[in-house]
Amino acid sequence: MTNSFMKAALDEAELPAERDEVPVGAVIVHQGEIIARGGNRTLELNDPSAHAEIVVIREACEKLGSQRLNNCDLYVTLEPCTMCAALISFARIRRLYIAAEDVKGGGVLNGVAFYDQDTCHHAPDVYSGMQETAAGEMLKRFFKSRRAEG
Amino acid sequence: MTNSFMKAALDEAELPAERDEVPVGAVIVHQGEIIARGGNRTLELNDPSAHAEIVVIREACEKLGSQRLNNCDLYVTLEPCTMCAALISFARIRRLYIAAEDVKGGGVLNGVAFYDQDTCHHAPDVYSGMQETAAGEMLKRFFKSRRAEG
Repeated sequence: MTNSFMKAALDEAELPAERDEVPVGAVIVHQGEIIARGGNRTLELNDPSAHAEIVVIREACEKLGSQRLNNCDLYVTLEPCTMCAALISFARIRRLYIAAEDVKGGGVLNGVAFYDQDTCHHAPDVYSGMQETAAGEMLKRFFKSRRAEG
Repeated sequence: MTNSFMKAALDEAELPAERDEVPVGAVIVHQGEIIARGGNRTLELNDPSAHAEIVVIREACEKLGSQRLNNCDLYVTLEPCTMCAALISFARIRRLYIAAEDVKGGGVLNGVAFYDQDTCHHAPDVYSGMQETAAGEMLKRFFKSRRAEG
């Protein structure tokens, strides 16, 4: 079941890749169903806040009419950055499922490790490494093709 | 000159206060002019990402047609949280002017002190304590009236 949700997040990463954006996708699951899905849209929208996680959290909040997503789980293909880690906390996401780790830019398992900090007032349960090979390969392909073009 | 910009940010904090939202306001200045202004709208929009800083950064990016705000300065009445600190870095804001410090929730001078971290790839110049009395009193008034109502 959870594997199909990460698969859906990986599918959402395809669109940014086609637009030459870093391929990250995410979905939010509520009561066993996907209620929001999307990918990184920073370049497309000229919006540096439009990471996949923020795109789907905003969509889910709109759908549920609340700024709290207490019983929702988030699946994302790359470890959230510091900005997204904090928003996931503010939105009260229950469980966070991560595919590939992001040693350079992550803020959950790496970097500021936000959920371990005193200034973090809600931490989701974190599950990492799900389908990390597929997610990692997608990212590697993307950066390889960018280097080839450059 | 800079004082008038922080005064404009303080004015923007009045609207959220009227809506019973934490009164934080911000403006973005480009080539000596305010190009974006706004306040905290998390409750109004059911959007946990709609902090004052994110509201004005998105507006300025839309206006300039870019996800980078290299020559822009941001004035905000309360120290940015971890989420906003990271977005300010991603957007390449040049200078960050802060009024009141936020010991509990801040991510610039307090908490994760994001700009001092290895995973931070751009840090703005930070100026804090500007008109902090006015900003602090506005926040104190707000929390006092909330307690009185509760």
